[in-house]
Order: sequence, then C-alpha cells, then structure tokens
Amino acid sequence: MSIAPWRSAIARALHRNRSLVYARYLQLATVGENNRPANRTVVFRGFLEDTNQLKFITDARSDKVDQIQKQPWAEICWYFPNTREQFRLSGCLSLIDDSHPILQPARSKIWQELSDAARLQFAWPHPGKPRVDKPEAFEPSPPNPAQPMPNFCLLLLEPEQVDHLELRGEPQNRRIYYRNEQQEWSTQEINP
Amino acid sequence: MSIAPWRSAIARALHRNRSLVYARYLQLATVGENNRPANRTVVFRGFLEDTNQLKFITDARSDKVDQIQKQPWAEICWYFPNTREQFRLSGCLSLIDDSHPILQPARSKIWQELSDAARLQFAWPHPGKPRVDKPEAFEPSPPNPAQPMPNFCLLLLEPEQVDHLELRGEPQNRRIYYRNEQQEWSTQEINP
Repeated sequence: MSIAPWRSAIARALHRNRSLVYARYLQLATVGENNRPANRTVVFRGFLEDTNQLKFITDARSDKVDQIQKQPWAEICWYFPNTREQFRLSGCLSLIDDSHPILQPARSKIWQELSDAARLQFAWPHPGKPRVDKPEAFEPSPPNPAQPMPNFCLLLLEPEQVDHLELRGEPQNRRIYYRNEQQEWSTQEINP
Repeated sequence: MSIAPWRSAIARALHRNRSLVYARYLQLATVGENNRPANRTVVFRGFLEDTNQLKFITDARSDKVDQIQKQPWAEICWYFPNTREQFRLSGCLSLIDDSHPILQPARSKIWQELSDAARLQFAWPHPGKPRVDKPEAFEPSPPNPAQPMPNFCLLLLEPEQVDHLELRGEPQNRRIYYRNEQQEWSTQEINP
C-alpha cells in the first residue's frame, strides 16, 4: 500500500491547525432509515497502520451502527478554521466490533490509548434512550483499560474520493482526488 | 407561528461563541445518487422572519441542488467549540430559486446583505467542473447588488427534530426536541 496523495494535504492542515483541539473533530454523514441522512461530530484518531483508512471509535449501541450495517457509504466533512480549508472524504465504513476476525489488535490498541474518561462512557447507560435519572448510572466502575468493552467499536473509513477546497486561494483552490478501478489515485483541479 | 423551544438554546450558543466567526459555519448532510450521503460546510444566515426555518444560500449549479430536488430531507450538524455543544437538526429543505412564487423578497434581501466578494462567486465559472484556466474568469464584472443573479438560491431548513448535546455537563446533557403531528414541540432528556 502506498500513501495516498491527499494524505500530505491533511497532514499539513492538521499541523497548521494544531493549536485548536477541535481541529481533530469532523462531521460524519451516513444514511439512515427512509433514506434520510444523519450527521454527527466524531474525533479523528489517526490512520490505521499501513493503510489510508481513517480511524474513529463508536459505541455498538449508537444509531450509526445500524445505519452503517445497512448502508456503509459515508461522507465526512472536515473544516479547518485556522487555514480556512475543507476536506470532504467519501467512501465505505467498516465496523470493527468484538467479533472481527483480524483487527482485534488495532481495536485493543485504540481502547488502551483512550483517556479514563473516554473509556468510562462505554459503561454508561444506553445512549439515546430516555435519560436514566440515577446519577450513579453515570459513575460506573472504571472498565479494564487493557481489554475493550464488548460495545466498543473501531470504525474505519476507506476514502474513494477526496474533495479539497482552500478558501484562502485567489480566487480559491479546489481539487478532487479519486481512486480508479486499479486502485490508483488521480487528481483534477476543479472550479471552486 | 411561535418560536420553537430549541431556538433559545441556539441563540445562547451563538452568543457564547460570538468570538469565533466560524461558529456560524455548520455541516449540511443530504442524500445523493445511489443513496450515498453528501456533506459540506455552509454558513448559517439567520432565521426566516416569522418562522423557525434556518436560512442558507447556494448556487443553483451546485450538486446539492439536484440532491435536494430528489430527496429534500437533510440533517445539519452544528458544533460550537467554545461551549463544547452540538446541535443536530433534521428536517426538510426548500430551495427558493428565481421562479419561487412567494419568497422573492426574502431571496432579494439576503442577496443584498451579502458582501461584494460573496456575490461575485455566483458569477464565477460552473462550480465542480474542470478548472477554467483563465484567471479573468474569476474576475467577472460585479453583479448588480440589488438584483439576485438567476443562479442564486435561498435554501431553507424546516427542522422536525433537534438533538442538543452538551459535552460540558456532568456527566453530559442531551435533549431531543421533536415536533408532533399537531406541529407542537415536545422535549425529552436522553442519555448522552
């Protein structure tokens, strides 16, 4: 596997926006029931080793897990405030839960890298259900930091197309990267 | 029409994040061909007078216009960095182009309020097509500031459901607002 040509543009944007913790936050759109879109903020957690796949995490109990199983295609929109640029990456999502045959080491590694507070959320009551009124429900025993909870999922996006818009250009720069059937990346400048 | 109960939460977030120009930027997800999601950053331009509809603008030549005509349902994701809160608003989009029978005054007003630079973009070459190499194509004569260009559209989102997540709560607060068949708003606290 070779590093895709859009990776350097993302690496540069992350570096130039490193003063903002939320430069690692982006919006993930999926398609849910009735062919309606869903859209939420997720945290970018790096690339899966030796691939161009972006890593995220999710709770197996969240709505997006159902959505992804029915329609794995997604588009993320990633806006970088300091440099005024946007990346739109579209491709297929893969959900790595506790039954995945190959990627358990990657799933464990990202669990181990989480903060205690982030791990604790996977022991909270079912997200999206009516609020559990007992405060102690949100103060569970800390999960084992070495062993992912069963509802902890690694989520991977394999981009097929990347649309990079730089609002600071003159007039603006916009470039599409797309992957052909031979899995090679091409690029084209387009009008902003 | 009465002001929806989620409006005050958005007004408060806008106020508390007013130091960030990009607090008015949010991500709009729609569904395109093959039932794949599309997701891009748009600028919030206030509410349409006497309604709970959010205003945006778009170019009639952009991909999202086709998408909206086939599937008007959308979800926006709006993250406010200073207060660490997220709003997800889902509902139907309406496109107000130059043939709309009623809302031409609202369309003209928002055109007139744009900066010269923002208006000029509607006279640029077709967005998303291969880059026009001549720099002069991006230096057109300034459009009439009083009269919207034919490809200028007002875009309205009528929310049916609003999901408000406050990451700063202890543990976190999350509340859903939804509109019933009598067009009345209800609210429910849910688990984050």
